[in-house]
Amino acid sequence: MTRILYGLCGRDAARPFSPHVWKTMMAMGHKGLDYRLAAVPFTAIPKIEQGETRTVPYLVDGDTRVVDSFAIAAYLDQAYPDRPTLFGGPQAQAQARLIESWSQMTVHPAIVRMAILKIHDLLDQEDQAYFRASREKAFGRSLEEVAADGEAERAAFAGRLDPLRRTLGYQPFIGGESPLFADYIVFGALQWLRIATGSVALAADDPVLAWFERCLDLHDGLGHSVAAA
Amino acid sequence: MTRILYGLCGRDAARPFSPHVWKTMMAMGHKGLDYRLAAVPFTAIPKIEQGETRTVPYLVDGDTRVVDSFAIAAYLDQAYPDRPTLFGGPQAQAQARLIESWSQMTVHPAIVRMAILKIHDLLDQEDQAYFRASREKAFGRSLEEVAADGEAERAAFAGRLDPLRRTLGYQPFIGGESPLFADYIVFGALQWLRIATGSVALAADDPVLAWFERCLDLHDGLGHSVAAA
Repeated sequence: MTRILYGLCGRDAARPFSPHVWKTMMAMGHKGLDYRLAAVPFTAIPKIEQGETRTVPYLVDGDTRVVDSFAIAAYLDQAYPDRPTLFGGPQAQAQARLIESWSQMTVHPAIVRMAILKIHDLLDQEDQAYFRASREKAFGRSLEEVAADGEAERAAFAGRLDPLRRTLGYQPFIGGESPLFADYIVFGALQWLRIATGSVALAADDPVLAWFERCLDLHDGLGHSVAAA
Repeated sequence: MTRILYGLCGRDAARPFSPHVWKTMMAMGHKGLDYRLAAVPFTAIPKIEQGETRTVPYLVDGDTRVVDSFAIAAYLDQAYPDRPTLFGGPQAQAQARLIESWSQMTVHPAIVRMAILKIHDLLDQEDQAYFRASREKAFGRSLEEVAADGEAERAAFAGRLDPLRRTLGYQPFIGGESPLFADYIVFGALQWLRIATGSVALAADDPVLAWFERCLDLHDGLGHSVAAA
């Protein structure tokens, strides 16, 4: 049986950059599960497995198919209970939704403004047209106008991570002494920023940077497998 | 054996308002533990138990003395494992630090600006002088200047709770199907705002308001035991 994880790529299939797919790649590493990564461009997602999904990550594990990074992590803990836990039980899984929501609503919008043109540039021609049209419709502004906020976002970015920085004063990972899916949720966002722009916009002595680097080193350095832009 | 929970009050000892003490009152209700609440003014905190603590909540449970709401919750789960869990295990306890940090760094500063003059007005004369001097030194501004930001904070307050609102789209409590200490962390902040100002500054149809009201009803309506200002 071959597990297949469908992900997202630009022109270079060897450089997956989606934050959500990175969450799942880290989750698979955490569980020690083998898989084949099938990274496709945005416009090829509707063709995956004859149209089974509209989004990635999409995991095919034998007869089981799961979409969405959080749902995949929950599935993995349920299907592989003897391997290291990604959540640590139902209470922690519920709480991870607030951490996901914080990352999604506070960290992601800033990264979009910092990285949107760089993400565009990673894509092939067909995807560039799709990306520009869909994002400009969503924002009601051109990509260049969205990116004009990027410098201000970059200057304010460390402040958005204040809650994580305070947490790291108590413990090395969001999960405590060792990482959990909650760590991968926020790692995925910063890895997206790193791969697209070459930097995570944090000072050299920032404890959040030290945490990010600890995460890059996990699972045989999985996070390092795609170089920064 | 009588358990004593030292808390904070203004002129009226029957109206505890500290967010951190409310976290612990909810935690004691969750565990179903009896205690005597000894609420004292700010300036009486150094006299508690012959000077054993500089902050409240401070719990005296037989020979055990614990300071700090998070540490008290951890102690309660350890000392009373047969009663309903406040965390749900070490992973959830670690993750609750990020939720505490988010509440502390995002929600609390807004509440301070909205409520600082009202909190001042709750205090007796000696505490008012202490509160004004210590807070004006910390902010480098008068209480009235800090409060001048309150109207803008009130207008933006619902937005600060976006991560919680998104979470409540998945589940009724931060803890999932039932509340955990993580819920009480954020509840304590809003209860502080409610008691000091009379309102939590949320629209009638806001899911966060519905969650707050569910929390007010918990443990025989403990949160209702102090009326809004």
